[in-house]
Amino acid sequence: MLERITGPGSVKKLQVNELPELADDIRKLLIETVSRTGGHLASNLGAVELTIALHYVYTLPGDKIIWDVGHQSYTHKILTGRRDVFHTLRQENGLSGFPRRSESSCDAWDSGHSSNSISAGLGYVRARDLNHDDYSVCSVIGDGALTGGMAYEALNNAAQLRSNFVIVLNDNNMSISRNVGGVHNYLAQLRTSPKYTDLKDSVKQHLEKRPGGNELVRRIQRTKNSIKELMIPGMFFEDMGITYIGPVDGHDIPALIEALRIARRKKGPVLVHVVTQKGRGYLPAVRHPERFHGTSPFEVETGLPRDNGVTTYTDVFSTVMVKMGERNPKVCAVTAAMEEGTGLKRFAIHFPERFFDTGIAEEHAVTFAAGLALGGMIPVAAVYSAFLQRSFDQIMDDVCLQNLHVVFCVDRAGFVGADGATHNGCFDLSYLSMMPNMTVMAPKNKWELSDMVKFAVDADGPVAIRYPKAKAWDGLEDYREEIRPGRAEVIEEGADVALLAVGAMVETACGAAEILKKHGISPTIVNVRFVKPFDRGLFRKLAEHHHTFVTIEENVRSGGFGEQVADFVSEEELPVRVQIMAVPDRFIHHASIEAQRRAAGIDRETVARRILEKTE
Amino acid sequence: MLERITGPGSVKKLQVNELPELADDIRKLLIETVSRTGGHLASNLGAVELTIALHYVYTLPGDKIIWDVGHQSYTHKILTGRRDVFHTLRQENGLSGFPRRSESSCDAWDSGHSSNSISAGLGYVRARDLNHDDYSVCSVIGDGALTGGMAYEALNNAAQLRSNFVIVLNDNNMSISRNVGGVHNYLAQLRTSPKYTDLKDSVKQHLEKRPGGNELVRRIQRTKNSIKELMIPGMFFEDMGITYIGPVDGHDIPALIEALRIARRKKGPVLVHVVTQKGRGYLPAVRHPERFHGTSPFEVETGLPRDNGVTTYTDVFSTVMVKMGERNPKVCAVTAAMEEGTGLKRFAIHFPERFFDTGIAEEHAVTFAAGLALGGMIPVAAVYSAFLQRSFDQIMDDVCLQNLHVVFCVDRAGFVGADGATHNGCFDLSYLSMMPNMTVMAPKNKWELSDMVKFAVDADGPVAIRYPKAKAWDGLEDYREEIRPGRAEVIEEGADVALLAVGAMVETACGAAEILKKHGISPTIVNVRFVKPFDRGLFRKLAEHHHTFVTIEENVRSGGFGEQVADFVSEEELPVRVQIMAVPDRFIHHASIEAQRRAAGIDRETVARRILEKTE
Repeated sequence: MLERITGPGSVKKLQVNELPELADDIRKLLIETVSRTGGHLASNLGAVELTIALHYVYTLPGDKIIWDVGHQSYTHKILTGRRDVFHTLRQENGLSGFPRRSESSCDAWDSGHSSNSISAGLGYVRARDLNHDDYSVCSVIGDGALTGGMAYEALNNAAQLRSNFVIVLNDNNMSISRNVGGVHNYLAQLRTSPKYTDLKDSVKQHLEKRPGGNELVRRIQRTKNSIKELMIPGMFFEDMGITYIGPVDGHDIPALIEALRIARRKKGPVLVHVVTQKGRGYLPAVRHPERFHGTSPFEVETGLPRDNGVTTYTDVFSTVMVKMGERNPKVCAVTAAMEEGTGLKRFAIHFPERFFDTGIAEEHAVTFAAGLALGGMIPVAAVYSAFLQRSFDQIMDDVCLQNLHVVFCVDRAGFVGADGATHNGCFDLSYLSMMPNMTVMAPKNKWELSDMVKFAVDADGPVAIRYPKAKAWDGLEDYREEIRPGRAEVIEEGADVALLAVGAMVETACGAAEILKKHGISPTIVNVRFVKPFDRGLFRKLAEHHHTFVTIEENVRSGGFGEQVADFVSEEELPVRVQIMAVPDRFIHHASIEAQRRAAGIDRETVARRILEKTE
Repeated sequence: MLERITGPGSVKKLQVNELPELADDIRKLLIETVSRTGGHLASNLGAVELTIALHYVYTLPGDKIIWDVGHQSYTHKILTGRRDVFHTLRQENGLSGFPRRSESSCDAWDSGHSSNSISAGLGYVRARDLNHDDYSVCSVIGDGALTGGMAYEALNNAAQLRSNFVIVLNDNNMSISRNVGGVHNYLAQLRTSPKYTDLKDSVKQHLEKRPGGNELVRRIQRTKNSIKELMIPGMFFEDMGITYIGPVDGHDIPALIEALRIARRKKGPVLVHVVTQKGRGYLPAVRHPERFHGTSPFEVETGLPRDNGVTTYTDVFSTVMVKMGERNPKVCAVTAAMEEGTGLKRFAIHFPERFFDTGIAEEHAVTFAAGLALGGMIPVAAVYSAFLQRSFDQIMDDVCLQNLHVVFCVDRAGFVGADGATHNGCFDLSYLSMMPNMTVMAPKNKWELSDMVKFAVDADGPVAIRYPKAKAWDGLEDYREEIRPGRAEVIEEGADVALLAVGAMVETACGAAEILKKHGISPTIVNVRFVKPFDRGLFRKLAEHHHTFVTIEENVRSGGFGEQVADFVSEEELPVRVQIMAVPDRFIHHASIEAQRRAAGIDRETVARRILEKTE
């Protein structure tokens, strides 16, 4: 069946009764491919029928489908002419794991972060209407993404629309607890089936037949509006005109097609509530949807991961947080829907009353942590670097301006590999360094992450520790000098060139130093530890007997560590040249982390080569 | 009556029937003071009785009141021992216009930005419970602030609480249209008065008496839950346990006290819906609440502003946007609840279909603009610098990563004076410069802002123009060289020292140059125009015959223009010293803009003095 899918229009040429077979074929391809490439599996398996139905009803690339987060778009890729290259998924120069406009005209929106699809869709709709175009726009958003505040902001705005805009709520009962999802289903059934109208009519008839009943009917009608109104001031779906259709069985293709056709014909905004099963069709993913949300390569038969378990920085953080929780009853942990990803699950099990998962709500999470700090607790907020960007203003105004003791554990800092540009954490050193009162640290290896978390918990004011998505380095085990505020650690004393390396780049610096030694250069290697405030005293001393500082960081150049050192050297008129190795001013796309570092010129070979070029 | 208010407990010593007189006295003090100092008037006049009631019920500083935005906290200040210094409001070293923990132990939270009070309050509540403290926590939030996404994120989290947390919804029908507010009132009446219960019971009785009625009752009960559930998945006030009380007449002190007392006694989260009138008690403010939201000094008798109307940068932007709208039917304007503040009112009147006010929803606003751009329009998003921080991630991922042509007009960039640290726009050059694909500009005077907006509308990719809250400078009228991408403008050719000035700092540079000339230094003056990408070619040339570059910017040093120049000079090994004049790494508090610039060392005298110190 897959053979017949050659481009965006192919699905439409099939009969509806042929589509379930197509779904089966796609599922096999998904499982087989992701078992080799890694990627988002459970969400994609859940959205196969929904995607087929969307393509049956909409005509791409004319119509616009906007995938929230985008981790459910694999079937969409297969159906839009990318079947033959689907095996390159998430590989360098291969398909992205997310929709990318550069990849296909059928991708209407580059996604990656959560909760923005309704805003984007609404933009398309308003532009369409202003231009008198007649394409359709459909935003597909999960129940988890709907916990993000900007989704509400967008719904609030969408409600005023007079022209068609379809929002598909892909409800897989995952991010919200199962029983809540259950209520959803029931309610929706009442609302959309003819029964709902029946119910209203028969209540009305019953009441009108009784003395005083008419007055009651009127009061009920007013109450009904009022209850909706009460829920969320300014945000009332139905009264404002968001039509609700659902729930639709998200694995029943004819039902999906029918619901989408109805939705597409309506004037104004329509919400189609689709109930799907995460991991559908692959038992290990159905049983462990969290593990198969984003997975590394695995054995199809068993569902077990192919890579041997390595200890990641996240694992180290996980362990030290349990220790922190035991040692100090004030320590709390806060995360935004990343209990597992940030390694806080163990803390949550040990200290459930001190663990707070806010859902996909980074803004709230940070300000909530600020409140905890004011109330006398020591909150540790663990968020991925790329997603912490959502809280820029809250870190600045609610934490730093009040100089509150909130510890930020910034996971996935630097390159993240296959997830690509939207998930790279290459900006945090810059955006955190510009905030007054903030301390910014990065550990060189597994032991140092542990030491830094302890240091940060005992410190004062806002403290951030950033570490990569990677195996925790176990090199330099003997270098475990006590962490002192603003002090760097000299790993190796050399001459002429001083390598000032941040966090994971210490390993790179050591590797580059090996190469340099072969060329007769014995550099000094410094583990910077503190990007803010950095060790001015040490750098002044180093300037006395080095002609070059080479700064190495896995962060953009603008506002990063290197620029700050250049500023410092310039200000103090130190007799030293500054060579900055940082991520250049462009987005680095998916590839292995090693390849991304090479692309950015911060791998050991390139670092060594660039230094040699300058010194020769 | 005011004489008897000496500290936080004073209100409690009064009889309830004495409180209206106190309210009158406070209102007089508010009007009299703000007429001299400027400040937020309408919101404060509306919250007098509510604040008195809060202080009657809660005991400060033990209990915590968290004021959202904080622009309604003047009465709170008067009631907590700050009456005698109230005349220093918003003056340098005087009272802040917002709650400040450094000012009083009765200020539980430093506010300024919108929609974060529920998050902060919830943090306090969780900490209180973990510490087995027994204080009360009350967050006071306006109906406008409730359009911000993070307020929903917080409500969604608050709903799970088992212990007391009071949220006061101060509904003045302003930010949400009046009729919405009206429905609010009605609904709330039904809910809280005994009548609501009566209604439910009598419907039930009526139905049960009819054949089949019992089944219907069950179905209605299920439907009722379901409707709430449907509105916002995962966010159902009452079912999750947020008790609703209201609406309460916000100017009826005994009613307010009663409602707050009931709310305070309840377990779990409680929302008290208070209806207030913005500007209450001062006719000009009641009639023009928008103008008296934040006002400059005015004549009490007439309500007319004391300052003569000067043309601000906002006015210039306002005019050019109307021209842009006329010239190009693709140009749209987007703002987040700042139609008047950003000067877009005229555009909105001329082109209502192309004007979009999203409410206080900066995240949605930016992504919506990205969608408009993808749909073929040219969106101009006008947001204050300090509030644009809320959209950091959306500018990065939804606009820059997709390289979309969205124009950001960043008003209130640099120091803002009396509103203080939360409103200063001193970070935008840094946070915008780090974003790949972004162009960042700043105009030297009124004509250049106009030229830059035209340039940006005709450009491609993301473009930001930042300009201050100030009279638009009308100096250097003859310097109107065409705007060319990445090219600076030489204002004056001199020797030895080159002043590289960004935006409003060109005026400062000209002033400093006058002083320098008296000391025998004739500096070159450069209007930088483009902070990103800056004019490397020109700077290389200047390095040939200048020994010092002095960069001047009204932005933090970290990641700002100066650091980028230091990086450039270091990278190219140009034989020139870089002296960076920027905002230092601390928050600058309220004072006049001139005083803030002096505090930051970027006023003309300090700039000149620092240059002389280095060159002598």
